[in-house]
Amino acid sequence: MTQDSQTGERTAAEQGASPHRLIASNRVEGTAVYNRGGEKLGRIEYFMVDKTTGQADYAVMSFGGLFGLGGKHYPLPWDMLDYDPDQGGYRIDLDKAKLEQGPSFAPGEEPDFDRRYDQRVYDYYGVVYTW
Amino acid sequence: MTQDSQTGERTAAEQGASPHRLIASNRVEGTAVYNRGGEKLGRIEYFMVDKTTGQADYAVMSFGGLFGLGGKHYPLPWDMLDYDPDQGGYRIDLDKAKLEQGPSFAPGEEPDFDRRYDQRVYDYYGVVYTW
Repeated sequence: MTQDSQTGERTAAEQGASPHRLIASNRVEGTAVYNRGGEKLGRIEYFMVDKTTGQADYAVMSFGGLFGLGGKHYPLPWDMLDYDPDQGGYRIDLDKAKLEQGPSFAPGEEPDFDRRYDQRVYDYYGVVYTW
Repeated sequence: MTQDSQTGERTAAEQGASPHRLIASNRVEGTAVYNRGGEKLGRIEYFMVDKTTGQADYAVMSFGGLFGLGGKHYPLPWDMLDYDPDQGGYRIDLDKAKLEQGPSFAPGEEPDFDRRYDQRVYDYYGVVYTW
């Protein structure tokens, strides 16, 4: 998880002390995602979970389009996301230009998420692929 | 994960070879849960995820009531669940009598899921509590 200079230690301390370490899967869905400048990038539509281990690997964020129409889905390595209790959303260190060129798919046209695809997404964002 | 004598090696081999290692969070929600005798126990309503690590800790299963009414929600340690591609659902080694006496709550009255609660649920099912 990355550090954030805006909220700093307080956020980290809150998270450590909070009884609300957990969040319901259906509340993650629909949660807003902001970049480090506080700009809203999109929202999490759903996330991809390893069936066996229960580990979330991707957050799938909708981005682009107008008024929710014509947007695409962007798989983001889960580790790129920081939960920010102050904003009630996730933050990510990513600018729009980088995101726009990133792996994406049309809603309803989900890729296979096989290992080759995983590798491509993780490489694109420079996140270490550990499995 | 437990072994299953019914589906045996084929299931394990399929899981290992499958490109569909991942499942979308909103597809886990609504998935049926069977016990080892093949009896349907209930369905997963949602699951509880660690906000920071992305690790699923509980599956919250609805059980009881008639025609979906009056049932309660039962948090189950995620590690108790095995995904069975043949049934397209999760299997759990648990009989109804044990489940009925287990920790539960009314829909919409979610507990805090603090560490004391975690401990209680994990102890009840005899699952090692590792965090």
